[in-house]
Amino acid sequence: MPKDTADLASRDVTVLGLGAMGSAIARNYLERGYRTTVWNRTASRAESLVEAGATATATAAEAVAASPLVVICLLDSAAVDEVLAAVEPAVKGKVLVNVTSGSAGQARANERWARAHGAEYLDGKIMGDPPYVGTERVLFPFSGARGAFEAHERTLRELGSVAYHGEDAGLAAVEFMAQVALAYELLIGYLHVLKLVRAEGVDVVGFTERFAGSLPAFPALLGSMGQAVKSRSYGPDLGSLDVQAALMDDLIAHRESLGVESVRMREVKALMDRRIADGHGDQGFSSLFEVLGGGREA
Amino acid sequence: MPKDTADLASRDVTVLGLGAMGSAIARNYLERGYRTTVWNRTASRAESLVEAGATATATAAEAVAASPLVVICLLDSAAVDEVLAAVEPAVKGKVLVNVTSGSAGQARANERWARAHGAEYLDGKIMGDPPYVGTERVLFPFSGARGAFEAHERTLRELGSVAYHGEDAGLAAVEFMAQVALAYELLIGYLHVLKLVRAEGVDVVGFTERFAGSLPAFPALLGSMGQAVKSRSYGPDLGSLDVQAALMDDLIAHRESLGVESVRMREVKALMDRRIADGHGDQGFSSLFEVLGGGREA
Repeated sequence: MPKDTADLASRDVTVLGLGAMGSAIARNYLERGYRTTVWNRTASRAESLVEAGATATATAAEAVAASPLVVICLLDSAAVDEVLAAVEPAVKGKVLVNVTSGSAGQARANERWARAHGAEYLDGKIMGDPPYVGTERVLFPFSGARGAFEAHERTLRELGSVAYHGEDAGLAAVEFMAQVALAYELLIGYLHVLKLVRAEGVDVVGFTERFAGSLPAFPALLGSMGQAVKSRSYGPDLGSLDVQAALMDDLIAHRESLGVESVRMREVKALMDRRIADGHGDQGFSSLFEVLGGGREA
Repeated sequence: MPKDTADLASRDVTVLGLGAMGSAIARNYLERGYRTTVWNRTASRAESLVEAGATATATAAEAVAASPLVVICLLDSAAVDEVLAAVEPAVKGKVLVNVTSGSAGQARANERWARAHGAEYLDGKIMGDPPYVGTERVLFPFSGARGAFEAHERTLRELGSVAYHGEDAGLAAVEFMAQVALAYELLIGYLHVLKLVRAEGVDVVGFTERFAGSLPAFPALLGSMGQAVKSRSYGPDLGSLDVQAALMDDLIAHRESLGVESVRMREVKALMDRRIADGHGDQGFSSLFEVLGGGREA
């Protein structure tokens, strides 16, 4: 199709769901000059957007009919199921972009539903807060129909920092959950360590600044560990397990003396001991990947 | 004392223990022009240092007698106890700088021993590898006798990036163990997440690069969380607990569907539920500090 037609087509967008995030998305499109159609179960949420130039519809199906690209941003997967059922007659030929929170499995189920009803499906997750929609401070991993992503890439990139993770519609949720879980691992570990630090009379803010100051060393370390796991070739990274394991006993004893939980430290020690018993005491921390449970194919 | 006398005095140093780290420390001092006396239980470890200009002694006590500043870098605390007992007659008036691995409790016990024998004691921990001794890539937290640290600060700063944490001799070990534990929390969490990522068919190296790319966002987040914990004033940081708790169920279900362990995620969810039940669902992640166990005074 000629470029000017593509430009024209891409400037119509519909947003279903006008919570804080859906409203921010709709407003972002309005401000960038898109013809924006909105729908929300509670119609009053649309008022300020209509004042700003949006078109509100009485039903979700009417909103879907209005644009080739439909962004769905609802409370949860149950709400998505309900709205999809209601708009079923209108979805044929549309691209549905669902950025509602939900699992990889739900994304895959939505993709099958869309395909069965003649629509294309992209799943997106949102890493960031509503005020920053439209800036680099919000990350949107997307996955699903590649052709649909490419056709609407320019429109999707208006939302923030956008990445496409692959045809499997579940991959955006996988990326989101992996990144978020790792953030929680770091942050809950941090809170436990603050308990220890404070019990020892150390200022928690000063300690935090020093730990934050050590973070720039991690990308290189993580990079080499990722390579080690991928190649199953484990150098002594943080030091050999033989040496590291001795340190773990001190860490555990210190935490326990202060009543600070040590579940991860005891787990790490047990994994190290097992790896050493297997004759790999010369390898590094990354080699513990070999003795972690789980990770069977989905 | 006049400056030139101080300069003269500060250029004599003894190193007890010539493993990989002790040897690197002795060599660093030699290269910087210090009159360096060394001792090691297995005397042959001293040979290459002697060739480079060090003086080796037959006994640890002779080595201690040779310099006002004695760096102790042995295998473990048991080795330190043994060597301290052997050098007891020689320690009066000396500054003992022990950088051997060990706990805060052991550091405090060493400090009491040194004081009882007329010596001053500094405890140090080493965050980094032997090849980088003498560079910014090795961090040395120190704690203990402030006067001794100040008198020998220039000599100690030859070792790398040096910080003084306070009169309590245990504080260097506390800093070390808190920083190391937090690194292990992040890294074991990372390995578990790689299991999940790989089971979903995602390249572990690509995921690692993306996670590493997100690390620059953490210092500001950690800084605000540290302030929140210190002031007990908890804003909604990552979002309110009401919203975050709903997400945890997805995270847990996804991990369990792949057989990936979820001990921290289940812990975080339980803490969030407890905080919400207490009427604080509008606060953020940092408020979980209030319901963490442990952290009684040492």
